[in-house]
Amino acid sequence: MTLKNDRFLRALTRQAVDRTPVWMMRQAGRYLPEYRETRAQAGDFMSLCRNTQLACEVTLQPLRRYALDAAILFSDILTIPDAMGLGLHFVPGEGPHFSHPVRDREAIAKLAKPDVKRDLRYVTDAVSVIRRELNDSVPLIGFSGSPWTLATYMVEGGPSKDFRHIKALMYSDPEALHALLALLADAVTEYLNAQILAGAQAVQIFDTWGGVLTTPAYSAFSLDYMQRIVSGLIREHDGRQVPVILFTKQGGQWLESIADSGCDAVGLDWGIELGNARARIGERVALQGNLDPNVLFGSADTIRQEVARTLESFGQGEGHIFNLGHGISQYTPADNVNIMLNALHELSPRYHL
Amino acid sequence: MTLKNDRFLRALTRQAVDRTPVWMMRQAGRYLPEYRETRAQAGDFMSLCRNTQLACEVTLQPLRRYALDAAILFSDILTIPDAMGLGLHFVPGEGPHFSHPVRDREAIAKLAKPDVKRDLRYVTDAVSVIRRELNDSVPLIGFSGSPWTLATYMVEGGPSKDFRHIKALMYSDPEALHALLALLADAVTEYLNAQILAGAQAVQIFDTWGGVLTTPAYSAFSLDYMQRIVSGLIREHDGRQVPVILFTKQGGQWLESIADSGCDAVGLDWGIELGNARARIGERVALQGNLDPNVLFGSADTIRQEVARTLESFGQGEGHIFNLGHGISQYTPADNVNIMLNALHELSPRYHL
Repeated sequence: MTLKNDRFLRALTRQAVDRTPVWMMRQAGRYLPEYRETRAQAGDFMSLCRNTQLACEVTLQPLRRYALDAAILFSDILTIPDAMGLGLHFVPGEGPHFSHPVRDREAIAKLAKPDVKRDLRYVTDAVSVIRRELNDSVPLIGFSGSPWTLATYMVEGGPSKDFRHIKALMYSDPEALHALLALLADAVTEYLNAQILAGAQAVQIFDTWGGVLTTPAYSAFSLDYMQRIVSGLIREHDGRQVPVILFTKQGGQWLESIADSGCDAVGLDWGIELGNARARIGERVALQGNLDPNVLFGSADTIRQEVARTLESFGQGEGHIFNLGHGISQYTPADNVNIMLNALHELSPRYHL
Repeated sequence: MTLKNDRFLRALTRQAVDRTPVWMMRQAGRYLPEYRETRAQAGDFMSLCRNTQLACEVTLQPLRRYALDAAILFSDILTIPDAMGLGLHFVPGEGPHFSHPVRDREAIAKLAKPDVKRDLRYVTDAVSVIRRELNDSVPLIGFSGSPWTLATYMVEGGPSKDFRHIKALMYSDPEALHALLALLADAVTEYLNAQILAGAQAVQIFDTWGGVLTTPAYSAFSLDYMQRIVSGLIREHDGRQVPVILFTKQGGQWLESIADSGCDAVGLDWGIELGNARARIGERVALQGNLDPNVLFGSADTIRQEVARTLESFGQGEGHIFNLGHGISQYTPADNVNIMLNALHELSPRYHL
């Protein structure tokens, strides 16, 4: 099968493209009225994730509305700890919570790796169905949370501002935390490989909370485990390379080590200038990012200016995938996405001459 | 008058000291049982700030318990917007809120600079009383929030995860936001000068939320206004230099520009290695920081190791003030602070030979 639009995969391996490819983190989401409608139909959030047909439907919604160059599997980053029996539920306005957080060595010792084929079958089923429905129009991205990021939710029991429970564990019983992270790294590797075998053509690891660590702790407790995953992934499938993107939010100072992990591309938040990142690691990996999602609340002029600034910062040449620096806000006016995309489609070809 | 302990002021101007001076952000706070008692006596948080005697009492509490080298005025960072009539109140478990957020050009145009001498007299009164009670044992630090940080609370109406209201304003009506920031910069300058005249021997500007901006936006909307304040401050008083510390949380990538602002010292969170920061700006300014406050939840061994690592990262020589990288957590076991201080007092003299 030949992909009709392979810009995204080409850019990930720093091959020539006609214009800068684009997708948006959380592109299938609450800012879209059609998403809210499907979500209401499904009931709660996890029921939507578990319903193969509806998960496929919301994955495709942004592609019907916008000229995007990739689809991303609709799912949650916490499917693995959910499958481990921690009791995932969503508190309105507060985000994900676990009924049974794991706070100490004993609780961690009781955990077992989920059976991906059985307990996460709903995810790989969704991948297969989405691939079929996409019909090779654009590639499909699979994803997982990083071990550290999954562990923060498992230990804190929900979102946190200070991460004091997991850091207390890290600073008082590091071996116990390492045991948890090793288990998660194994599970994530299996999970992403299952997504790849089901049809995901690239995968992204979301390390949303790696940036709250010190430099040595980031290396030991987050990056090392992502590196372990990258080494264990199926890197070629169906005659095509399967690129891996690592995204550590607020990881700008560690780009060199992230690029050393063996990944193909590094995701960037808006806190770092693309030109700076490219000068540091652009010879080794592709870069994905990094518009502040809040720019989409701005005036049309500002949106165009910020798109122009982002393109100019990366500069001439290959290896840039345009994206937001974080998930799109649920409050984003959906039409502003078109202002951004029109600017990108108009301005980016000149960077690929 | 001669200060009995001037380590902190000497280190701020990179003069020789016998051991690394130390204080802790939020050292007068809820982790201390004696604080909780005084707070209960005062009623709510702002009543405690407004009660000169009690504000003095809680300022002194950590100094009775610990061998610290500086006191910091007990107050809130939001006293200025409170004095501007925004209706500051505290929602338990959620932090500060304003009853009247300012979201647009019209609301901003209606704001007036507070009368520092009248509306913030309770703060300068507290400074005078604390100075008298300290009796030149250690220096007293005055402080304010940065204009950007104050504006985030004023526009969002409370704490925020995504800062979408203030960024929407920034990306749609930047002039209106500049007007607000200019007003706040004027007010902060007056406020800090009043604290200096009342007896504050050093001042710190807390830019808690500068790190959520892009590089050009940080420069235009946060650093420029802090620079304006620094230029307007009384830099010598009572025959002694009054050092200024700028602390932008998550500002590690902008250290060179921060050091260029004219400040004497730069506060650092734990996200950056002191050695890296020193190599970049240590010839120009002192550095303050940067232990992860969550280390204080760790084992005694880990606390000692992390203190040792922090000292070793800065290395031999002058210009380091030991601190946490953020305010001490209310859940910190108070005895662990002594483990940290003992390690510091034991290990740091060898770096000052």
